[in-house]
Amino acid sequence: MENNTAQPGLDEPLNPAETGSQRGRILDAALDVFARKSFGATRMDEIASEAHTSKAAIYFHFPSKERLFLALADQFANLLERRVKQAIEPEAQGMRRVQVAVEICLDTFGKYRRAAKIMLAQGAGLGAAFEEKRSEINERFARLIATYLREAISQGEIAPVDVEVISVAWMGAIYALVIHWVNTGEPAPQQILSALVPALLRSVGYEPQKA
Amino acid sequence: MENNTAQPGLDEPLNPAETGSQRGRILDAALDVFARKSFGATRMDEIASEAHTSKAAIYFHFPSKERLFLALADQFANLLERRVKQAIEPEAQGMRRVQVAVEICLDTFGKYRRAAKIMLAQGAGLGAAFEEKRSEINERFARLIATYLREAISQGEIAPVDVEVISVAWMGAIYALVIHWVNTGEPAPQQILSALVPALLRSVGYEPQKA
Repeated sequence: MENNTAQPGLDEPLNPAETGSQRGRILDAALDVFARKSFGATRMDEIASEAHTSKAAIYFHFPSKERLFLALADQFANLLERRVKQAIEPEAQGMRRVQVAVEICLDTFGKYRRAAKIMLAQGAGLGAAFEEKRSEINERFARLIATYLREAISQGEIAPVDVEVISVAWMGAIYALVIHWVNTGEPAPQQILSALVPALLRSVGYEPQKA
Repeated sequence: MENNTAQPGLDEPLNPAETGSQRGRILDAALDVFARKSFGATRMDEIASEAHTSKAAIYFHFPSKERLFLALADQFANLLERRVKQAIEPEAQGMRRVQVAVEICLDTFGKYRRAAKIMLAQGAGLGAAFEEKRSEINERFARLIATYLREAISQGEIAPVDVEVISVAWMGAIYALVIHWVNTGEPAPQQILSALVPALLRSVGYEPQKA
């Protein structure tokens, strides 16, 4: 994981494909304003002004500030999934893919820490709507982990384990450490990576390989 | 873990020591009303009526419905910590204590599932205030796990591991599975217990012992 010391506003765009579009500009602008002012304190016309567009244009894409925030959460989750899938493609199937997927997941939170912090620290202010989105995204990544674990089992790299339980447990472990880092700045991403990945692999009876 | 099929209202009291007191009666009554009507739909005078007391008496103990809910979360966390500490006392120090602590934690969510469901499913509706309480409680249990892991290391039962990372990861894994169970009814508590405990122990290089 990169030791990202970038200033707020210097992250790469969450979705380069949308950068030129009006919807993409609104999402980028919203992220900037949320970062400066928090979700609760942001007014839709401030996002409009930042995106050089009108409030009507924003409401055309997003019926409410809450839905705009949830669209950012989806954008972040899509980015994460895209990066994981790209990273594992050149790897052989099985445990090496599991390892790379976990590494790129932590790396993404480090690289896009501004977006990650907004999502994780401000999301709670939305209450039940965000909780639902968070569960949905966590489920989605737990299923991705489950896919790679099943591959590893079918290739005989690890003995059969209860994939349903283990995939949720891994997702929970990763999420708890990311949240802890967002809230407190500790442990450092590199420390998380070097302690967590071997522990996860050992939890299914696999001795970690050096990259 | 007990396969609890009890109806709402049939859980044991969260804090027997407070059962007779006015504060205890209000907390018990609030739990009953939240279970029937949800946090958002509950009015303070309904809790007063259920507790056979006045709204003024409730406001004497709890300045708001939100603070009352957060007091229930504390009560649940205290119960969990009390049960963990009682359960591990007769055990030798070290990994056997770690194992029993995780088991009793899952057992408690099973035994007090009505309270657990209210805390976990309705808490999000409180937004940032509950998020803060949840972090505080998760931190507290991560520190408890860290204590037992350090004991196991100092006794040479396991090789040194990064206790800061592993304790947060374990707490996250347990929490994710409990939340998943509360939201979906799956995996069954017994399935969680029998797959998760060995995985956690293996993650620190310890081969689980049969109880």
